[in-house]
Amino acid sequence: MSTVSVPDLVDAPVEDLLTLTAALVAVPSVSRHEGELADRVELRLAERAPHLERARVGNTVIARTQLEADRRIVLGGHLDTVPANGNETPRLDGDVLHGLGSADMKGGLAVLLRLAEEISAGARPRFGCTLAFYEGEEIAEEFNGLQHVFAERPELLAGDFAVLLEPTGGRVEAGCQGTLHLRAHFAGERAHSARPWKGRNAIHAAAPALHRLAEHGPGTVTVDGLPYRQSLQVVRIEGGVANNVVPDSCTLVVNRRFAPSYSVDEARVEVEELLTGADRIEVVNASPAAPPNLDHPLVAEFVQALGVDVEPKLGWTDVARFAARGVPAFNFGPGDPDVAHTAGEQVTRESVERCYAALVGFLGVAG
Amino acid sequence: MSTVSVPDLVDAPVEDLLTLTAALVAVPSVSRHEGELADRVELRLAERAPHLERARVGNTVIARTQLEADRRIVLGGHLDTVPANGNETPRLDGDVLHGLGSADMKGGLAVLLRLAEEISAGARPRFGCTLAFYEGEEIAEEFNGLQHVFAERPELLAGDFAVLLEPTGGRVEAGCQGTLHLRAHFAGERAHSARPWKGRNAIHAAAPALHRLAEHGPGTVTVDGLPYRQSLQVVRIEGGVANNVVPDSCTLVVNRRFAPSYSVDEARVEVEELLTGADRIEVVNASPAAPPNLDHPLVAEFVQALGVDVEPKLGWTDVARFAARGVPAFNFGPGDPDVAHTAGEQVTRESVERCYAALVGFLGVAG
Repeated sequence: MSTVSVPDLVDAPVEDLLTLTAALVAVPSVSRHEGELADRVELRLAERAPHLERARVGNTVIARTQLEADRRIVLGGHLDTVPANGNETPRLDGDVLHGLGSADMKGGLAVLLRLAEEISAGARPRFGCTLAFYEGEEIAEEFNGLQHVFAERPELLAGDFAVLLEPTGGRVEAGCQGTLHLRAHFAGERAHSARPWKGRNAIHAAAPALHRLAEHGPGTVTVDGLPYRQSLQVVRIEGGVANNVVPDSCTLVVNRRFAPSYSVDEARVEVEELLTGADRIEVVNASPAAPPNLDHPLVAEFVQALGVDVEPKLGWTDVARFAARGVPAFNFGPGDPDVAHTAGEQVTRESVERCYAALVGFLGVAG
Repeated sequence: MSTVSVPDLVDAPVEDLLTLTAALVAVPSVSRHEGELADRVELRLAERAPHLERARVGNTVIARTQLEADRRIVLGGHLDTVPANGNETPRLDGDVLHGLGSADMKGGLAVLLRLAEEISAGARPRFGCTLAFYEGEEIAEEFNGLQHVFAERPELLAGDFAVLLEPTGGRVEAGCQGTLHLRAHFAGERAHSARPWKGRNAIHAAAPALHRLAEHGPGTVTVDGLPYRQSLQVVRIEGGVANNVVPDSCTLVVNRRFAPSYSVDEARVEVEELLTGADRIEVVNASPAAPPNLDHPLVAEFVQALGVDVEPKLGWTDVARFAARGVPAFNFGPGDPDVAHTAGEQVTRESVERCYAALVGFLGVAG
């Protein structure tokens, strides 16, 4: 195995996208600790892309072209990673970069940094460009940098369509499914387990609903020709007081992933029917789906120009934040999504370079 | 409400059984902290029942008549209580004593202390008498004082039949059901909950077994004319990793209470069949049932002499330790079992005095 030393992020030459990705990996940025990486990105943009207008909200950095343009594209990538798994040090091995965040999604950030420099240097893209380097994607909603900017300075994210450079293996992942978590409480009454008829067993009370949920097949729904394979999963169950006590409480958490043809309310009503018998049901979180928008002119143009496969996005991603504001958005980025969040995370040179080439081609920048 | 001061345990006059019970309640003896009460009981026996042979094993105190007798009765009561629930201070209110352990089972201990003094003072019972004041009944098996004595000095507990003075409301509770706890593990494979087909949901895997267990009615079995109403309860369930992860593990704990006509193995096989689909099943604990032995001459004589109701014991109690050694045993003691382990625990003067009168009558002691 050959290993190569990794340059500082601000100094890394822009032409070598894989080494630039390694320099990004070398700055730790586990969620809620994105400050140093945000600082370095901001400094690099100031030095190397001075003609872009910069803004910062928390640890989210946004760079925008100031050119007049009919239409504007927002290109986004999150700065944060999941916690390290023995893979915090980047390792360049030929044309493969190993390390935390290499696929999810510092390869995408490298593409964004190079686009920023190309555009700032005078290449004139077909669209106004907004580049968003944001914090807090891998953790709870409340920490999400895009959400903060939409709440505090929405004008910074205004645009006609959006691309998030999440790892998709170079495919377009269109739209995204909605996600709904419900917590259901089944109540009972404690008693000695030798005399259960003096109480009521809450775990037994939950059994019919659990059985219905486990048997239910939520099916596949086709939207814009894309098959959205839905899911319904009991992700947690907990009940019990002591081994000799009839339990008075049992709690389930159900996760429903639904196609873009469903609203959150429709999904909720369906799950609540399966949960008949519960004493209380609460919504833990609910995020609407995003339509694939394949017939939107800009999306159609992007898909056609790139000639890449289009697949439905089955997980929920930040594209839904744009969709909720009427802005078509999709995921398209380097890296294999299946290695994200694993100890063996890696990204190839070819994957990063192909993503960059596709974007500069679409934007009409020399590249 | 009138309250009365409670005398020291060693000095409390033996004639007033309710005040003697209060003096016992005044010495805290939560399980694993029985030392002080064992010391005080031992000292009182030394001073007031000097003709009994005393022995001590851990915090279990045993006093035995040295008279020759054809037959020997073992009378037992545990020293320990469950943890306090705002009721640690005894409160005498007329003919009712409130406080932790008043019903379970310091009223029974007061009866034993008075019997010890009567017998030591020269009253000649029809049987050799062994009085056991033992530790660790309310907690895990390994702390049980009777078990320790059976293991270390079984001759101290030798006898022809045994009575435990657990609170039964003055009824004879005959035999006891067996109890079996099984833990069943259902395995799965983790995956993102948006793509569950890449894994296998362990909670869903457990659903059919849980449904069968909840539906199963284990029925009532009659032994010696006594109806043993059995039970089968899922007392714990736990599964889940995170709200977005298909769970790879789900664990159930099942408690089966079975009539004396079943062996532990028969009960285990029955529950294992209901748990079909589990990846692993382990026995958490198993205690055999005790037969009611109503046709044993001494038991029949006791029941007839007292003219009290006989009921099947549905919980597991220490009578099974004697039954396992071929010694018929039953529960018979003062106090309402339904107030045991509650904040409102109490015992009445009448309940304690009636139990004492019944025992001295049966033993042929003046009383």
